[in-house]
Amino acid sequence: MKTDIDQLMEEANLDALLVTGPAGNNPYMTYFTGLVHVTHAYLLKKRGDEPVLFHSSMERDEAAATGLGTKDLSDYDMIKILKEAGGDQIRARAMLLQRIFKEFGVRGRVGVYGKVEVGSLYATLNHLDDAIAEIEIVGEAPDRSVLTRARTTKDDDEVGHIQEVGKIATAVVADVAGFLTSHQVKDGVLVNREGGALTVGEVKRRINLWLAMRGADNPEGSIFAIGHDAGVPHSAGKDDDLIPVGKPIVFDIYPCEAGGGYFHDFTRTWCLGYAPDEVQEVYEDVLDVYETVYSAMKPDTPCRDYQVMACKLFEKKGHHTVLNTPQTKEGYVHSLAHGVGLAIHEGPTFSHVESNEDRLLPGSVITHEPGLYYPEREIGVRIEDTVWVRPDGNLEVLAEYPKDLVLKMKDV
Amino acid sequence: MKTDIDQLMEEANLDALLVTGPAGNNPYMTYFTGLVHVTHAYLLKKRGDEPVLFHSSMERDEAAATGLGTKDLSDYDMIKILKEAGGDQIRARAMLLQRIFKEFGVRGRVGVYGKVEVGSLYATLNHLDDAIAEIEIVGEAPDRSVLTRARTTKDDDEVGHIQEVGKIATAVVADVAGFLTSHQVKDGVLVNREGGALTVGEVKRRINLWLAMRGADNPEGSIFAIGHDAGVPHSAGKDDDLIPVGKPIVFDIYPCEAGGGYFHDFTRTWCLGYAPDEVQEVYEDVLDVYETVYSAMKPDTPCRDYQVMACKLFEKKGHHTVLNTPQTKEGYVHSLAHGVGLAIHEGPTFSHVESNEDRLLPGSVITHEPGLYYPEREIGVRIEDTVWVRPDGNLEVLAEYPKDLVLKMKDV
Repeated sequence: MKTDIDQLMEEANLDALLVTGPAGNNPYMTYFTGLVHVTHAYLLKKRGDEPVLFHSSMERDEAAATGLGTKDLSDYDMIKILKEAGGDQIRARAMLLQRIFKEFGVRGRVGVYGKVEVGSLYATLNHLDDAIAEIEIVGEAPDRSVLTRARTTKDDDEVGHIQEVGKIATAVVADVAGFLTSHQVKDGVLVNREGGALTVGEVKRRINLWLAMRGADNPEGSIFAIGHDAGVPHSAGKDDDLIPVGKPIVFDIYPCEAGGGYFHDFTRTWCLGYAPDEVQEVYEDVLDVYETVYSAMKPDTPCRDYQVMACKLFEKKGHHTVLNTPQTKEGYVHSLAHGVGLAIHEGPTFSHVESNEDRLLPGSVITHEPGLYYPEREIGVRIEDTVWVRPDGNLEVLAEYPKDLVLKMKDV
Repeated sequence: MKTDIDQLMEEANLDALLVTGPAGNNPYMTYFTGLVHVTHAYLLKKRGDEPVLFHSSMERDEAAATGLGTKDLSDYDMIKILKEAGGDQIRARAMLLQRIFKEFGVRGRVGVYGKVEVGSLYATLNHLDDAIAEIEIVGEAPDRSVLTRARTTKDDDEVGHIQEVGKIATAVVADVAGFLTSHQVKDGVLVNREGGALTVGEVKRRINLWLAMRGADNPEGSIFAIGHDAGVPHSAGKDDDLIPVGKPIVFDIYPCEAGGGYFHDFTRTWCLGYAPDEVQEVYEDVLDVYETVYSAMKPDTPCRDYQVMACKLFEKKGHHTVLNTPQTKEGYVHSLAHGVGLAIHEGPTFSHVESNEDRLLPGSVITHEPGLYYPEREIGVRIEDTVWVRPDGNLEVLAEYPKDLVLKMKDV
């Protein structure tokens, strides 16, 4: 949580944090600023001090709305600095940061963050690192950085944001279910009243529309994958595909707050009309692992234990898994879970590799998403909820929704 | 254009390009891949060779859909590499890239690109730079990088994308105009039939909705700024603000293709019902500069000349400008234009600083957006179109829309 940052900085031996980029769609900056219209900025936080937001003059009112300490970048006369740098933008940016560091008394190890164009910043930071003897620029490992670790547990306000997006996500899932089942069936695929076949592309356009209507953004798209595509976990589905009855559809939706804030991650697998026996069997294996592992989860335990548990349960049921068949493309081929917050994938991680030291902690918000994949058999099944490990140690699914495999169609 | 890349690499003395990150909302990657559901990848292009996309196994079908040469990252056994790296993710990533570079015979200067989390990549690239003697990792200046320069001119296909988004943007602007003028006026602000006051927040929700309905994303939000806010160029407007008649509203909309593709940038300034004389005067000054500079623009000329021209024209009309009053927050306070493409702000740049060597070239797609700002007087006016410099040298506004200041209200 934010309140852990100073302690985490001390553990990582960092004297300051420098975050760069816009306020939205940029998790580390949004973590401090919230969702405001700040399109490019620096945020500087010295250990033990409050953060300061450096903003363009044009965005001074928006910067002030963050409630953070602010500093107008026009105070530094970039045109003069650029002239002194001989027109070299990289040198000029390094000189600007050098002045800021001097003015704010920054010394020692400075951790850098922000989702921005890497090339010029890489050069700028190396320039800065070389130019100031008493500064060391530190790029931390993604799984262990101070802010990653802070973000790995959420305060109640953050959980509230994730829950609100979850309400939108599940409402749209219900919209989609209602839309699909309102169709008729002709030659095994969904058609509208005029007999026109429904496509995956049309479903996805409506998902975007319904998300926007309800106040969410969909920056990463969604997965609506049928048959072979359902058997490939990240395959998004093909726009021209028709929608058949009796085949598994993996519907994975992961919207965020409008403007690029907190995400929610949610998946259901549906068969329209009926489920063939072999799909039903795979589905029941996934649901069983979902429930068994969910019941076992408790705080202050290693995350990797649950991935290993899921693998062993699946293997016992006769499926290959990444535990004993690392390169497998059939069976259980991914991790059980991941943290969800300002990024759709964040800590804690649930990889079964032994170096994974992440723990399930009170305040963690994670997905729980076992799945099985058989692309050659045109089967994929995943069930996913976003789960909060409450401060009292109990787990809570943040947006409840029925897990039925079959959506009844009136014609089938 | 893409066809210039090898030549630009030669000029910059780069032997290879390494692009990283997802395919959407990541201009340098999207430039090569188009909009597909690839969430994390590397793209490697050696000078003179076709690019190769390195993708996760789960996204193999999507990677194949790009039409690029592809390579499955699971071929490299990351779990083994991570073990060899002692669980250090930064070392492991550097080792992976080292293997890829070796396998593909990459030597010399490698330019790096991609909008990603900077911290760990900074460390990874430094690691790589240190680890391989025959490799130098190069972060180019943002205004001069090979891919920035390639993207500074667009081929017809790219222009078509920007034009399509422009059709959506202007259709939504018309939606908004129709929505506003359908309201009644009570106590000087817009109200609906039930007498409820319309807010900026409600207008913005509808903008998002209408953009989604028409197939565009709005990742950067939009500006709908009234009075004082209109006088601050990047102020986005306050959700709780009511919508008055007779005050300037700056409405700046910059959506992109659904999934994070090409942008279009467009602004109109409206007064609902009537325009006070002092707003009308400011508006006419802006429109006059818009038309005078637009008529003067021709290809193969320095971009900064037009910014200087705009400043001088505004100063002649009695306004302060950034040319002779660099820190001014009143008058003409920004640049005349910027390139538009896969990023909302890209090359060419129109800064008046002497080091700006960018030229207006056939194939450039730029905004044209003079404006005047008087926050204390609650006046802001900006008129903006997205303009293509055609291969024949003529300019073309990519999405035409009336420039009227006053939107007629039936009650006023």
